[in-house]
Amino acid sequence: MTDVLIPWPQLDERHGPWPDGTRVHVWDGRTPTAQLSAEALDAVSLWVMPYAVADAHRLLDRLPGLRAVQSLSAGVEKLQPLLPAGVALHNGRGLHDASTAEHALGLILAAQRELPRWVADQAAGRWEPHFTRALADSRVAIVGYGSIGEALERRLLACEAEVVRVARRARPDSGVHAVEELPALLPDVDIAVLTLPETPGTTGLFGARELAALPDGALVVNVGRGRTLDTAALLAETTAGRLRAALDVTDPEPLPGDHPLRHAPGVLLTPHVGGGAASFRPRAERLIVEQVRRWAAGEELLHPVPAQA
Amino acid sequence: MTDVLIPWPQLDERHGPWPDGTRVHVWDGRTPTAQLSAEALDAVSLWVMPYAVADAHRLLDRLPGLRAVQSLSAGVEKLQPLLPAGVALHNGRGLHDASTAEHALGLILAAQRELPRWVADQAAGRWEPHFTRALADSRVAIVGYGSIGEALERRLLACEAEVVRVARRARPDSGVHAVEELPALLPDVDIAVLTLPETPGTTGLFGARELAALPDGALVVNVGRGRTLDTAALLAETTAGRLRAALDVTDPEPLPGDHPLRHAPGVLLTPHVGGGAASFRPRAERLIVEQVRRWAAGEELLHPVPAQA
Repeated sequence: MTDVLIPWPQLDERHGPWPDGTRVHVWDGRTPTAQLSAEALDAVSLWVMPYAVADAHRLLDRLPGLRAVQSLSAGVEKLQPLLPAGVALHNGRGLHDASTAEHALGLILAAQRELPRWVADQAAGRWEPHFTRALADSRVAIVGYGSIGEALERRLLACEAEVVRVARRARPDSGVHAVEELPALLPDVDIAVLTLPETPGTTGLFGARELAALPDGALVVNVGRGRTLDTAALLAETTAGRLRAALDVTDPEPLPGDHPLRHAPGVLLTPHVGGGAASFRPRAERLIVEQVRRWAAGEELLHPVPAQA
Repeated sequence: MTDVLIPWPQLDERHGPWPDGTRVHVWDGRTPTAQLSAEALDAVSLWVMPYAVADAHRLLDRLPGLRAVQSLSAGVEKLQPLLPAGVALHNGRGLHDASTAEHALGLILAAQRELPRWVADQAAGRWEPHFTRALADSRVAIVGYGSIGEALERRLLACEAEVVRVARRARPDSGVHAVEELPALLPDVDIAVLTLPETPGTTGLFGARELAALPDGALVVNVGRGRTLDTAALLAETTAGRLRAALDVTDPEPLPGDHPLRHAPGVLLTPHVGGGAASFRPRAERLIVEQVRRWAAGEELLHPVPAQA
């Protein structure tokens, strides 16, 4: 018998029966774990963790038979050090592409077309139209070009923008530049979107030098991880009114209520909701069903995360 | 000699010399017309009107030699009755497609991903993420499927949404439904976007019956003309919390400071800025240059507006 623990009930009703010999237990990360029997906890070998539940990892101590963990996040930098030896980790690569890419697009459009100003004018009783920037005809650098970047690129091209692909390593066959080329590329860029994961190599990757290379009035968007962008340097550039920013992730996170970024001119903030939209759920359910099928059949799971060096 | 009056100077520097025998005069709609010589005003035969200048039409009385007017707006319903007999009217079809389509997309994303809430939370010092609706996987009806609708459709498809095309007349070969089919189509639609011009046939076209046919929680977007949507019926549905709305055009317009739409729950307003973004200018310049070339050569101008019945 194979025991798996997943975050949502009744997936078999939507996706077909579970494999023979599989017992499926459910924990959503919020209801008391007392509802899970000791026998079930002892037997679970694959755990699909609930999404965006900060302390869910505490259950790790109570799963002695655990051999694999499936996270529904694309970035697992905080989870990885907490896993017991011998437990394989798999990430949610791709689950948030549509959700995150469309949120990045929404942030870009809100900034270019000045939505925060219109929201304030709506409440204040004003009707004062004026010309704004546009997304069409803009040049957008995607820094950290991966699956989210590809999803964003498709949307940007449909919006008649031009895309410059940048990643940690150049991939000349795919027109992907290396981050070392950023200082030469950024002077011709209207919008820079960061979609970088957090690794030792990406911390502070987009810093004062990169920001200084952007032209006056450029927009910096971050939907990856907050620590890849130098917050102090960004704060200096936005406070001076030289650059604008739209950030779904910040450093620190949550951003304190009195943090100066909240009131810096031309800065739009959302509280790390890029991946948290309705389009995530059906994609996550399909991954869970496929991983359980593979686990029961003894096949390799999708999206393994290499062990840390 | 052919005299034309256009709203911007130095187009020849960017687009090449004007045709031989053409005198180009400039009036931006804001500087005093006293700067235009009486001789120039007498001679102008083609006038490209400044964009979005409410009282620009007053100059019509002072252009005795006028034979053609080029508007830079797609909708000319207010200008048309003001033209003297014998003056041909040409509209700005296509100039605003990119700008309006991207603003419609921005409004949809802002509403689905709850940007107005995050803007308020940013200022209030809150960090309270929660799941939202998405655009991906949504079904979007475009009501008034024309060139703006086509531009919006390309953007929506890139965002993994599904599009239902609706126009005043069915075009079965292009998969375009007639507006009479709306009550049957709308129950399966998540988002309805109006891109209708204002004509006697479109006033109040999207009324209480169409709104009632939408499912609970659906979003109504209007980037066409305010009077095509029944404001009182929309206000009732949004005040009840049953529908949401994102409107760039309203009835009346400007919307008074104390209008109840401004504070209705789930309503996002912008002050008719769909067409007014940076991407308009280069497209408008290219049209002006082409129309002046045609005018000087005695060719037919693009985008003639049929005389009113």
